[in-house]
Amino acid sequence: RVNGDRLWDMLMEMAKIGPGIAGGNNRQTLTDADGEGRHLFKTWCDEAGLTMGVDQMGTMFMTRPGTDPDALPVYVGSHLDTQPTGGKYDGVLGVLAALEAVRSMNDLGIKTKHPIVVTNWANEEGARFAPAMLASGVFAGVHSLDYAYNRKDPEGKTYGDELKRIGWRGEEAVGERKMHAYFEYHIEQGPILEAEDKQIGVVTHCQGLWWLEFTLTGKEAHTGSTPMAMRVNAGLAMSRILEMVQDVAMSEQPGAVGGVGQMFFSPNSRNVLPGKVTFTVDIRTPSQDKLDRMRAKIEAEAAKICEALGVGCSVEAVGHFDPVTFDETLVTRVREAAERLGYSHMNLISGAGHDACWAAKVAPSTMVMCPCVGGLSHNEAEDISKEWATAGADVLFHAVLETAEI
Amino acid sequence: RVNGDRLWDMLMEMAKIGPGIAGGNNRQTLTDADGEGRHLFKTWCDEAGLTMGVDQMGTMFMTRPGTDPDALPVYVGSHLDTQPTGGKYDGVLGVLAALEAVRSMNDLGIKTKHPIVVTNWANEEGARFAPAMLASGVFAGVHSLDYAYNRKDPEGKTYGDELKRIGWRGEEAVGERKMHAYFEYHIEQGPILEAEDKQIGVVTHCQGLWWLEFTLTGKEAHTGSTPMAMRVNAGLAMSRILEMVQDVAMSEQPGAVGGVGQMFFSPNSRNVLPGKVTFTVDIRTPSQDKLDRMRAKIEAEAAKICEALGVGCSVEAVGHFDPVTFDETLVTRVREAAERLGYSHMNLISGAGHDACWAAKVAPSTMVMCPCVGGLSHNEAEDISKEWATAGADVLFHAVLETAEI
Ligand SMILES: NC(=O)NCCC(=O)O
Ligand SMILES: NC(=O)NCCC(=O)O
Repeated sequence: RVNGDRLWDMLMEMAKIGPGIAGGNNRQTLTDADGEGRHLFKTWCDEAGLTMGVDQMGTMFMTRPGTDPDALPVYVGSHLDTQPTGGKYDGVLGVLAALEAVRSMNDLGIKTKHPIVVTNWANEEGARFAPAMLASGVFAGVHSLDYAYNRKDPEGKTYGDELKRIGWRGEEAVGERKMHAYFEYHIEQGPILEAEDKQIGVVTHCQGLWWLEFTLTGKEAHTGSTPMAMRVNAGLAMSRILEMVQDVAMSEQPGAVGGVGQMFFSPNSRNVLPGKVTFTVDIRTPSQDKLDRMRAKIEAEAAKICEALGVGCSVEAVGHFDPVTFDETLVTRVREAAERLGYSHMNLISGAGHDACWAAKVAPSTMVMCPCVGGLSHNEAEDISKEWATAGADVLFHAVLETAEI
Repeated sequence: RVNGDRLWDMLMEMAKIGPGIAGGNNRQTLTDADGEGRHLFKTWCDEAGLTMGVDQMGTMFMTRPGTDPDALPVYVGSHLDTQPTGGKYDGVLGVLAALEAVRSMNDLGIKTKHPIVVTNWANEEGARFAPAMLASGVFAGVHSLDYAYNRKDPEGKTYGDELKRIGWRGEEAVGERKMHAYFEYHIEQGPILEAEDKQIGVVTHCQGLWWLEFTLTGKEAHTGSTPMAMRVNAGLAMSRILEMVQDVAMSEQPGAVGGVGQMFFSPNSRNVLPGKVTFTVDIRTPSQDKLDRMRAKIEAEAAKICEALGVGCSVEAVGHFDPVTFDETLVTRVREAAERLGYSHMNLISGAGHDACWAAKVAPSTMVMCPCVGGLSHNEAEDISKEWATAGADVLFHAVLETAEI
């Protein structure tokens, strides 16, 4: 078993970097705080005897050597970046539990045939630079490096420039590493494990996603002196699209979600009807059919809504992944480890996207999950117990050891 | 008649300060550009022999003396501040036409019994600091100086600090001046004069307004892993409120408008359901009854919408004025001046709010309007012709001269 106290101490230390405003964290990708978090993580890895590789996307690969020079490494990780008002565990738990697993192997004098690489993927959240899971996406060949470097934050700064600025642009070509397997441990970010009173989620699938960024073009005009009949009201069109997205998601229940997290009015002045309204619709479901149908329906209905109001409508897909099925052998290994360790468990479909979704394209992959209080995540109030954190880390430790072969 | 070319040249010179991105202006109140615009205006006033007074709100009063030491001054003005994506004429025309009227008096050697005070009211637009018409509101005793100084822009900077920073905080107590009359010349900002092919709007009334700032409190949560049934979706509540505001305004046709220009999502991240959505509903109508009814209905319906979704709802009135009836004698004087000068004219109700609405509380007041292309304002594409500008300035000149008594 791993050292749950040590894992918890690392979590609490890391949470001091990029503090939020309500007990959580704001350690968004490629900020100074992200740089600081990376240095702290590297210090711990150095102490554990790991050697670092950094690729051109800024992903950190911390290697514990194996005994067989020809054996491909087992990768284990997640991400240290957070949402602007994020929790202390989303991503961080997976990276630090991977490190804790290695520290436990050191303590126990365990050697593995396959090397183990503790991994901190860059820009998993996608909050500052869309899309999410950007570095793992480039690693898996889904995005080009050029595409990734040109992603812009709301201030117009690019991923490439900001990565260089914080000093974490590595030399290594992205995706040149070959993986024996990839494991990721994460909080559930949803309500199911807690509701079902299970300690471990054995993750079999991940929902697919579309991020549809709408740009509606209205006519900037005075809110007071522009008669109702003369308005080209992009804000009204937006409100109808949001209601429609809700309807589409509800019509695909159970097993589908849809909503909007990001919204910009321009010029955003109280007495000006917006000339431009930009917002991103987030839809997800584990069913490829539903995902395709929802996207098509939303785009078609939005076009009708806008046409009726004379509002211009353009849509850009700024994020996407298809539903994922994780590797059966690894899934079974996670389930058996939970069973063996005496932890209650159940199968789960991940509601959120994870770097494991892209890793699954290039290597056998799976995930382990632990509950979080009230299913709450992407909220500074996100919470887990030390016991929950430790149980999942134990399961990860066992499944990884079995895969890396003692 | 005034010198229309000289007026137009001043308009074009002023438009060079705080240029916009699409041919208009961004010279928002208490910015460096506002300061620069004030200095240019002062230079012209100095050349015309006017003496300056500046009050504690930053309003500029440029006086041309009268012949009777006991006669109260006739005030004539508008505002030089603009929207973030504003036009070159909204407000500016009224200030510079007042100055042009005085320059024409100088040219013609005309002396008046009453002094004439060319006035540049501070923060008319209310774009940076709500509410609109802030300085004239303090002047009229509607707001306290303290209230005004503590108004915050979206970055949290206060009116008082920014006024000091740009060096335009005067010594004069606000509202201590007594006015014989107040005149304001403005572009219509609506479509009626152009549609009716009239050169002059004789402004008899101004619509009343409420700015209702809604703060909706939802539950910040992951867009992917939070099931539809568990959402406390402030964005959805917002969309329903926008549709309801549209319905309320439509149900009061003709003669009522309602819409939303300003919107903030928090934390505004694509994969986070907003914990907070803030937006301002702008409703206006010339009827006091309708205005009261619309406000009551909107607040009641919004409360119901939010309750049904479990979303918290608070409303703050951040701007308000009752419908205004302008002074009959002055209105008649404007109409007769248009008639005498051979300009086509019609009665108008101002759709926008103006400093004249507050001035009307403390002195006989009225307005003159000229058409603008397509009724468009609060848009960088706002446009008028030199002929339109000149016609209104001529009418202003005559009505002011008659009131100031030769
Ligand atoms: N796990 C997680 O929150 N990832 C961010 C990408 C997503 O929105 O699912
Ligand atoms: N004239 C004008 O645009 N004033 C700003 C205040 C308002 O919104 O009516």
